[in-house]
Amino acid sequence: MPTQEQMKRALQDYVDGFAAGDAAAITALFADDAVIEDPVGNPPISGRAAIEEFYANAVAGGAKLTLDGPIRGSYGDGAAMAFTVEVPGMRIRVIDVMTFGADGKIVKMTAYWGPDDIEQ
Amino acid sequence: MPTQEQMKRALQDYVDGFAAGDAAAITALFADDAVIEDPVGNPPISGRAAIEEFYANAVAGGAKLTLDGPIRGSYGDGAAMAFTVEVPGMRIRVIDVMTFGADGKIVKMTAYWGPDDIEQ
Repeated sequence: MPTQEQMKRALQDYVDGFAAGDAAAITALFADDAVIEDPVGNPPISGRAAIEEFYANAVAGGAKLTLDGPIRGSYGDGAAMAFTVEVPGMRIRVIDVMTFGADGKIVKMTAYWGPDDIEQ
Repeated sequence: MPTQEQMKRALQDYVDGFAAGDAAAITALFADDAVIEDPVGNPPISGRAAIEEFYANAVAGGAKLTLDGPIRGSYGDGAAMAFTVEVPGMRIRVIDVMTFGADGKIVKMTAYWGPDDIEQ
C-alpha cells in the first residue's frame, strides 16, 4: 500500500499537471487499467487510451485546478481533495476521490460535481 | 434517485446535527442497513445499532463540523463535502462521501482522513 505521503504527492502532482498544461504528467499517475468516473452518474471510462484522451481534452480546454483545502489521506489506499476547476467562462466545484494500487498508481478516480456545482 | 437538493440538504443536516448535539437527527439520515467506513482503512460498521452508537459517541465527544467549501453533488446518487472537525484538543480535516438510496436515505458513508490530517 502506498504511504500517505505518496498518495498526497500524487494528488498534488495531478493539480500541478493541470497548472503546467501537461496531460502526459497527469496520465502517468494512473495505472494502465484505471477507471475514471467523472462525474458520478456518467458512464465510467477505463484504460490507458481513454484516460489519455480524457486528460488531453481537459488540458486542451484550459482547465486549472485550485485546492479548496488540504488534501486528505486515510488509513487505507484512498485519498481525496476538494478543489475548484476554472475553465474559460466556467467554474466547477469538485471533490475527487482516488484509490491507489500497491505500486502507488491511481486505479480509480471518482469525481463528485453536479449541475448545481457549475458557475457560468 | 434523490434530487441534488435532497442530497445536499442531507449533508447540511448532518453538519447541523453535530452543531445541535443531536445524534438522533444525524442517524435518522441513514438507511437501517447503511454502511459507514470512517476513516477508509478501518473496518466498516453497518446497521442501525452500530450507527447509533457511532454518532452517539461522536456527539458526546463534542465534535463540531465546519464546511471547508460548498457541498458537492453529482449526476448520480452521490454527494461529498470537505470539512474540519473540531473536538476538544484536536482538529481533523475530513472529506465525507455519501451514497443515497432511492428514498433519500444515506446507504454508504465513506470518510477520508488519515494520521497526517489530525492537528493536536
